[in-house]
Amino acid sequence: MPEGIRAKKEENFSEWYIQLIEKAELIEYSPVSGCIILRPTSYAIWESITQFLDKKIKEKGVQNVYFPLLIPENLLKKESKHVEGFSPEVAWVTEAGDSKLNERLAIRPTSETIMYDTFKKWIRSYRDLPLLTNQWANVVRWEFKHSIPFLRTREFLWQEGHTVFATQKESEEHALEMLEDYAKTYEELLAVPVIKGTKTDSEKFAGADITYSIETLLPNGKAIQAATSHCLGQNFSKAFDIKFIDKDEKTKYVYQNSWGFTTRSIGIMIMIHSDNKGLVLPPKVAMNKVVIIPILMEKDKERVIGRTKILKKQLEKYNPILDDRDDIKPGNKFNNYEMKGLPIRIELGPRDLEKNQAVIVRRDTGEKRSVNLDDIDRIVEKTLDEIQKNLYIKAKEFLDNNVIIVDNEKEFEKNINKKIVQVQWCGNPECEESIKKKYAGVKALNIPFEQKKELKNCFKCSKKAIYYVNFAKSY
Amino acid sequence: MPEGIRAKKEENFSEWYIQLIEKAELIEYSPVSGCIILRPTSYAIWESITQFLDKKIKEKGVQNVYFPLLIPENLLKKESKHVEGFSPEVAWVTEAGDSKLNERLAIRPTSETIMYDTFKKWIRSYRDLPLLTNQWANVVRWEFKHSIPFLRTREFLWQEGHTVFATQKESEEHALEMLEDYAKTYEELLAVPVIKGTKTDSEKFAGADITYSIETLLPNGKAIQAATSHCLGQNFSKAFDIKFIDKDEKTKYVYQNSWGFTTRSIGIMIMIHSDNKGLVLPPKVAMNKVVIIPILMEKDKERVIGRTKILKKQLEKYNPILDDRDDIKPGNKFNNYEMKGLPIRIELGPRDLEKNQAVIVRRDTGEKRSVNLDDIDRIVEKTLDEIQKNLYIKAKEFLDNNVIIVDNEKEFEKNINKKIVQVQWCGNPECEESIKKKYAGVKALNIPFEQKKELKNCFKCSKKAIYYVNFAKSY
Repeated sequence: MPEGIRAKKEENFSEWYIQLIEKAELIEYSPVSGCIILRPTSYAIWESITQFLDKKIKEKGVQNVYFPLLIPENLLKKESKHVEGFSPEVAWVTEAGDSKLNERLAIRPTSETIMYDTFKKWIRSYRDLPLLTNQWANVVRWEFKHSIPFLRTREFLWQEGHTVFATQKESEEHALEMLEDYAKTYEELLAVPVIKGTKTDSEKFAGADITYSIETLLPNGKAIQAATSHCLGQNFSKAFDIKFIDKDEKTKYVYQNSWGFTTRSIGIMIMIHSDNKGLVLPPKVAMNKVVIIPILMEKDKERVIGRTKILKKQLEKYNPILDDRDDIKPGNKFNNYEMKGLPIRIELGPRDLEKNQAVIVRRDTGEKRSVNLDDIDRIVEKTLDEIQKNLYIKAKEFLDNNVIIVDNEKEFEKNINKKIVQVQWCGNPECEESIKKKYAGVKALNIPFEQKKELKNCFKCSKKAIYYVNFAKSY
Repeated sequence: MPEGIRAKKEENFSEWYIQLIEKAELIEYSPVSGCIILRPTSYAIWESITQFLDKKIKEKGVQNVYFPLLIPENLLKKESKHVEGFSPEVAWVTEAGDSKLNERLAIRPTSETIMYDTFKKWIRSYRDLPLLTNQWANVVRWEFKHSIPFLRTREFLWQEGHTVFATQKESEEHALEMLEDYAKTYEELLAVPVIKGTKTDSEKFAGADITYSIETLLPNGKAIQAATSHCLGQNFSKAFDIKFIDKDEKTKYVYQNSWGFTTRSIGIMIMIHSDNKGLVLPPKVAMNKVVIIPILMEKDKERVIGRTKILKKQLEKYNPILDDRDDIKPGNKFNNYEMKGLPIRIELGPRDLEKNQAVIVRRDTGEKRSVNLDDIDRIVEKTLDEIQKNLYIKAKEFLDNNVIIVDNEKEFEKNINKKIVQVQWCGNPECEESIKKKYAGVKALNIPFEQKKELKNCFKCSKKAIYYVNFAKSY
């Protein structure tokens, strides 16, 4: 049995998280610094995410493809802002077997360049558009910042969508649709509320015209970017010469988008829902949604085990674990499955059996109640549904309570360490930059789609404001 | 419209294949030599395979995990035969951003070393066994031989299973079970018959005690290894110090297996079933199983299109394509979808509509027949089933007709260029080696599980034979 987490979430958040993910057997550190091993529990979460999101992606007519891992240096360099953004963290292959390579090959940090070099062969006329592709893949970004499992690792898993359109309008609409699907993946599957918006120019993706993002706040008061969807405009189509003959017989450059969702989402979900007893998983992503623990006394031992076996079969669709080991105390088992985040525990002892009942315990609230065995199927289903909803509601309340609108820097300063602070901004990057410099770790998250109507003055320079923008300490 | 394949399968097999996979839009060449791009049609085939096989893997209690792409050089070197086998084709990362790395990192050619370094932390006692893991991943093997799309590329996709047992017996049983699942994936899904057997010592995996394989014969008379399942014995557990305390309280080294199934399977399937008109896909792996083509005349055009729209909806579960473009001739459409391998074509023109019928055309046999529209659902289902079976039967006949048992070298020589030749063998590697040297490209495929009872003399040295072994020209 693993021992409990020795740090408290509310006191030492980072230490709590690091202990949790190891003790809940979500990850293991690898011999390559900054790269983690996804153990079955966390990989199963990723599988739930990929299934949910892949379905949405395919419903939009996007087709999955696979492009090579390695990108020749000359390709990576074709779009100047893009290479500038990524080159400090590229891992380079320079040798193979006993040979030196003629040209360095980048392990993909993202695949715009290798994909678009080929897209130009596939696109001739407006009939070839839109071109809608996606790939599920690993990427490497050799960051030198301190790594945080799931949130910032040198290798991570993701999907990267790459879509091509005849017009800017279609491109923007599609980018927003994908952002909507990302928001649904967080909200409906991971029970994590997010704030949709547009990145400021200085925070957008290297090579993009517009970056849309979803952002959220973690329990330690730090915000995090949850996913992004970019309108690349014609920046790459001009660099890679991707043109098409339009209906009017004129040759035009295409408009392109890219959009990505990563294993970072697993870390965000864990941080938001889990507690000092361990992992708390939304039922929709829990590999095993139920654990059944027979309470074994001398009396009626075989009958109790027999009944829990039937129960296991009955609840098969929740992929239950039946832990009927006789040499481990029930209390230790309780702690173990609480650590691992199983949404529902069912206890069944000889006295329960006499009364044709079992005890159901919710992982999220700890609430215990006796239920009739004839009714248990329905109650498990209902309870799983309630847990999923409750986790979202709690997280939404936390987020709503921690987004504050202020109109002066004094108030900004008072709140910026723990909240998302929304302020009016003139749109001048200098005001944004001065905030970044003054408050370590603070940056503009996004310009939320939901804007209050009334606008007055920039909270920094007092010139006329053009938006509200969200700032926070951020990962 | 793509033009047809200019080479004939029976005359110039390689050229036929190369033209086919490009014209059917399965692949595109990438700017990195030896790496291909999987376009939607081929990636969808891979998705069918992963779904089919992943289900079988999970049914056996194996859990999916993800280990890092990059392996430090010192780990890769820990098992001496393993590193000897793989080091000539390892791609090395030596730089990241502007920094030189202290130690070279290998892009995984396979993950034994990085996984087993961690397995030792997870295994303490017999209670932790068996440990059953699998990962779906990309690997890089920088081969310097001529690359052949799908069959031999420098990067490919696969699953690699890594399982750990207390006893040799369990390890061998499990290795055989996985081989059985691989055979089923080929036979039931890809409609490709295979020959199960054991690799000779000189052909087994670098670091294995036993390699089980499935092998098949391609239409050009060359054999190919379709998948392998290895008993690694205690070779890696000794190199990585993976021990457990057994029930008898003694400390023992574990027994390990690894087993892999790759995107090579897509190439094998294409080569076996396809013809001079293009791709032929077994219905179970075809992304779109049906194409509906309205035959558009002036008369009743709208009614015909309307009826095909209803038909599309009716056949939704086969993910049909409705091609009602008015500016392309039906004949061109027929060629196009034949090239792309869709199992069934449905034609519907004004005269068909009058008779409440449609024409169904099978891609595998070209057979055409009129069927009543009220009955079409059932007939499509039945026909898809027949196509799947027919492709397997045809392939099985070809394989059965091209495995020949001979008992002397003269007969061996006569058949070895076009067939799998089964001979009696004394087990001495020298006899095997002398064959490899004398006949370019020929090697021992495997020692088939199905052995004829009667054994006499080695076909090479005339000493007492101990098995029948399959030889062939091989990829």
